[in-house]
Order: sequence, then structure tokens, then C-alpha cells
Amino acid sequence: MKLKDKKWLQEIRFNEEGLIPAIAQDHQSGRVLMLAWMNRNSLQTTIDTKKLTYWSRSRQKIWVKGEESGNEQNLVSMQLDCDGDVLLIKVKQKGNIACHTGRNSCFYRELGENGWETAEPVIKNPEEIYTNG
Amino acid sequence: MKLKDKKWLQEIRFNEEGLIPAIAQDHQSGRVLMLAWMNRNSLQTTIDTKKLTYWSRSRQKIWVKGEESGNEQNLVSMQLDCDGDVLLIKVKQKGNIACHTGRNSCFYRELGENGWETAEPVIKNPEEIYTNG
Repeated sequence: MKLKDKKWLQEIRFNEEGLIPAIAQDHQSGRVLMLAWMNRNSLQTTIDTKKLTYWSRSRQKIWVKGEESGNEQNLVSMQLDCDGDVLLIKVKQKGNIACHTGRNSCFYRELGENGWETAEPVIKNPEEIYTNG
Repeated sequence: MKLKDKKWLQEIRFNEEGLIPAIAQDHQSGRVLMLAWMNRNSLQTTIDTKKLTYWSRSRQKIWVKGEESGNEQNLVSMQLDCDGDVLLIKVKQKGNIACHTGRNSCFYRELGENGWETAEPVIKNPEEIYTNG
């Protein structure tokens, strides 16, 4: 996406830590895959490279989705909410696996009578995803 | 939903402010409607009443979605992500309007060459929604 100027970035309201939540949604199935956080830099990188790039709060570093697993997310389109403080990003999910547990979506647990119940199968074993073995 | 015990609530990782982001998704269209925040109390109220109930960070109070506009959200199902710190909630959106601007979704602005462009029509004028006139 060619953007004329940086005005689009100035309209975003990052929080006091300089972050904004980004919801990744599969552009075809409509499944919500995950929510992660972006800072100004990772957002700009996402636009420039068309690969979803987040800010890892636990590791305090830029994190290209799929850099370890190979399960990259390619940018399809980006929406901003009315308050300017949440992003919704439509993605092509490589391998159909967004979750580090090897499932399509990180939201694989559903609330039932007995609490959170796993409602979605593992597509690929995480041991196979994260090792070269 | 009848829940056997409170274990489901203990498995949720609220942030340091006692809040968790909740993504509301239309259960039929799959549209992501909004993201708002819940605390323990508003989440329990959501389960008990089946009406989506959030915590307003700006007003610092419990907020039943639609209490002013009439555009309530009814709970259909609830998912928790792998980290236990984000909720995805499928809802029936009354009036088909989740946004205070009178649109279906709060994510009505899409990034294009010229920046954020309004990509979704107003269904009902906010002046008609928020006054009794």
C-alpha cells in the first residue's frame, strides 16, 4: 500500500506505553485468529513489508509473526475503530495456523458448563512447528 | 449458561488494572463489531444477564452495552485465547448497530492511499439514537 503521507499514523491513539491492540482476522473465513500489540515501529513495518509485525510485551521486542514457526500473516487490509485506539487487520494466514499451540485460532477454548473447553483441533504439533528435528 | 463453579473466572488473566480486552463479533455475519474492556464484575454480569456488560475506562464505571442507545448485545458464546488474556465474544447485535456513530461496526475506517477512509454507511443518525426527541 502506497501512502501519501504520515497523517494516517498520527490519527492512531497509542496507549501510554506507545502500544495499540491489533486484532488479526482471517480475510476469508472471518475467524478471529489472535490479538497482539503493535507500536509505531511495528505498525510501520507491517505496512512496509505487508507481513504482520507485532511488539512482544513479554520479550520487549519487535516480533515478525511466523519468524520462528513459518506461519506468517500477510496483510490484506487494515481498519481503525471509532476511537482510533484499536486496529482490525485482515490477514492471509500461512499454514492456517495462527496459534503457537498449532491451532488455527488462539481462541480455541469456549466457555461451557464445565468451564473453558477446548473446541478446536491441533492442526500441527507444536514440536513439529518449532524444531528443525 | 449454568456454570458449575468459579474456576473459569480464575483462569482469566486480568491485566494490572484488573481488565481484559473483549472483542465482540457478530455471531452471524462474522463482522468484528468493537473491542471494549471488562473487569471481573462486568464479565460475571455478562454471564449472569446474557447482556454484554463492559467496564468504561473513560467513565470508570460499569456499562451495559446499549443502555442508552437501545442497541444491546446478547451473549451467544465466549472464547478465551491461549494466553488467557483476551476474550472473543459472539453476540447478537440489536439494531445491527454497535458503533456510537450509528454504524454496524466500530471498525468503519479502512486504510487506503489517502489514509483512513470511511468504508461503511451510517445506518441510523446518532442524534436519533441518543435523544428522545
